[in-house]
Amino acid sequence: MKQLEEKTLDTKVIYNGKIIDLHLEKVELPDGNTSQREVVKHPGAVAVLAVTPENKIVLVRQYRKPLNREIIEIPAGKLEPNESPELCAMRELEEETGYRTEKLEFLQSFYTSPGFADEIIHIYYTDQLEVGNEQPDEDEFVETMEVTLDEAIEMVQNQQIYDAKTAFAIQFLQLKEAQK
Amino acid sequence: MKQLEEKTLDTKVIYNGKIIDLHLEKVELPDGNTSQREVVKHPGAVAVLAVTPENKIVLVRQYRKPLNREIIEIPAGKLEPNESPELCAMRELEEETGYRTEKLEFLQSFYTSPGFADEIIHIYYTDQLEVGNEQPDEDEFVETMEVTLDEAIEMVQNQQIYDAKTAFAIQFLQLKEAQK
Repeated sequence: MKQLEEKTLDTKVIYNGKIIDLHLEKVELPDGNTSQREVVKHPGAVAVLAVTPENKIVLVRQYRKPLNREIIEIPAGKLEPNESPELCAMRELEEETGYRTEKLEFLQSFYTSPGFADEIIHIYYTDQLEVGNEQPDEDEFVETMEVTLDEAIEMVQNQQIYDAKTAFAIQFLQLKEAQK
Repeated sequence: MKQLEEKTLDTKVIYNGKIIDLHLEKVELPDGNTSQREVVKHPGAVAVLAVTPENKIVLVRQYRKPLNREIIEIPAGKLEPNESPELCAMRELEEETGYRTEKLEFLQSFYTSPGFADEIIHIYYTDQLEVGNEQPDEDEFVETMEVTLDEAIEMVQNQQIYDAKTAFAIQFLQLKEAQK
């Protein structure tokens, strides 16, 4: 196997923000040359694929400033310092949708943009929902929706669903359905 | 439907980089209050799920500085200015793996991190491969691998495959298999 590691020679902090930090790293490449890597630091996130007793998927419509548009996503949110992903998933689900659960199944974790960011997202599944208390963050405006799998697939096709975690979650349900 | 739009009141450019830029946007929230959004600007990317005549998936092992580790991904790369996603996908596939194709099927596009970045990735599929010329970028060190679907699923489980586009691609093949 080739040696592929890039050693950090120097780190310059460009920005320390509310959600992300930006570092510029000078690295030594495997061939001994040097290069620079732009690295966005993120606390990590969770998302929940939640299915109601009526077999509908719980989604949230949300304006995403980086995209300058609304998209529809599974409920998700950032990890607080020292918060376990599972507790974070339960908290975010209830805050954004008003649904509470005590039973989450871990599906998968993945990095979202390994080329420039360290954000990892942990994805959970639940079909055990109770009614709790909706309470979004003060700068967070969301609208909850409940749709069938067929409706969700249509939302993928017409680009209302347009993000990685939600695309993965919808495909997960399609696979589950196909394997029945 | 609730009004969810966030209007930009002011944009401050924090950083203009080689791959990403960082903007800090002051926004007016739907309730009239103001907040700040950190926005990473990215040129967009493509990825290719390529399957060989032996029914193996073409993957690349690569050191990802933001993660400080190697992960295994489907071939991918950034869009050049004014480059069409399809031509970019053909170019990146050949540069990184040495495989050439003239027939790509578009699978799906999605934003990778809509909370803080505008990166969109366009994912293509091909099982029509010819041998071309491997030629990675000068600061890019990759190793090509070819694995079966079962091996790829194992790599997901042991976190060698650990990024969104590749997780999506593997699940796509599982779904295709299940629907046969």
